Amino acid sequence: MINPFDDIYFMRKALQEAELAFEKGEIPVGAIIVVKDRIIARTHNLTELLNDVTAHAEMQAITSAANFLGGKYLTSCTLYVTLEPCQMCAGALYWSQIAKIVYAASDEQRGFKTLGTKLHPKTEVVSGVLAEEASALMKRFFIERRNLN
Amino acid sequence: MINPFDDIYFMRKALQEAELAFEKGEIPVGAIIVVKDRIIARTHNLTELLNDVTAHAEMQAITSAANFLGGKYLTSCTLYVTLEPCQMCAGALYWSQIAKIVYAASDEQRGFKTLGTKLHPKTEVVSGVLAEEASALMKRFFIERRNLN
Repeated sequence: MINPFDDIYFMRKALQEAELAFEKGEIPVGAIIVVKDRIIARTHNLTELLNDVTAHAEMQAITSAANFLGGKYLTSCTLYVTLEPCQMCAGALYWSQIAKIVYAASDEQRGFKTLGTKLHPKTEVVSGVLAEEASALMKRFFIERRNLN
Repeated sequence: MINPFDDIYFMRKALQEAELAFEKGEIPVGAIIVVKDRIIARTHNLTELLNDVTAHAEMQAITSAANFLGGKYLTSCTLYVTLEPCQMCAGALYWSQIAKIVYAASDEQRGFKTLGTKLHPKTEVVSGVLAEEASALMKRFFIERRNLN
C-alpha cells in the first residue's frame, strides 16, 4: 500500500509556509513538526516582522510543538524545514532531542553542517527533499528584492 | 576617576537574575543586556516554567533588547551572562551582531567554545568575570535538587 504521508508530502506543507513568509517580505523559510503523521506546528520565518533574529521558522516550530505536547522534549517528532538549519536552530534542536530532521535546500555558508553544530546523538537527518523547489523560491525572493531596491 | 559601571557591576546584576531562576527551580542562569551603561534587558532561564528548550536567559535577552531598541541588531550592546552560552544562544548572538559578550562560569561540556560555534567577527568575548560566584550558585542548585529527589 502506498503511504501518502511521506517526506515529500510533509515538505510540501513546509513549502506552503515558506510561501507565506515570501508574501510578507520575509526570507522564505517554512517549517512544520509532525508526530505520527499529524502536523502539530506550522511556522515561517518572521525575523523582519517581529524585529527579532531569533524568530526563525524552526525556533517557533519547536516552541509551538512543545506547547502542543505539554512537554519540552520532541523525542517522537520530525521537523520538516525548507532550508538547512543554522547554528542557532540546530542548537535548539539539540536541546529538544528531536527524533528526525528533514530539510530541503542546503545552506553552504551558514548551515549547521558547514559550521559543525552538534545535534543530539539520537537525531536522524535527511536532506535534499524538494531541494530544487525550496532553492527556486529563495532565488526568486532575492531577485525580486534586488529589483525593488 | 573610578567608573562604577564595570563588568563586575553588571555581572552582579546578571547574578541577581540567576538567583531569581534558582528560586523558581530553574537551572540558575541570568543575563542582562547593556547599552551605554544602561540595562535594557534583564532575563533568566525559564525552560521549565515555559516548557520550552529555547527559553534560555540569553534568547529572551536578545528578543527583549531588540524590542526595546526597535531594531533586531545589537551592534552597540553588551550581554552579561552567568554561564558560557550554548550553541543555540551563541548562534542567536551571531545573528544579532552583538558588540560584546561577557560571561562568568565556563561550560566545558556544552559551551560554545568547546563546541566551536561561530560568533560574528565583530563580537568581542570576555570570560571569567565573577566565575566563582556563578559556579557556586550552579553547584548549590544541583546539590539541592539532588537532595529533593
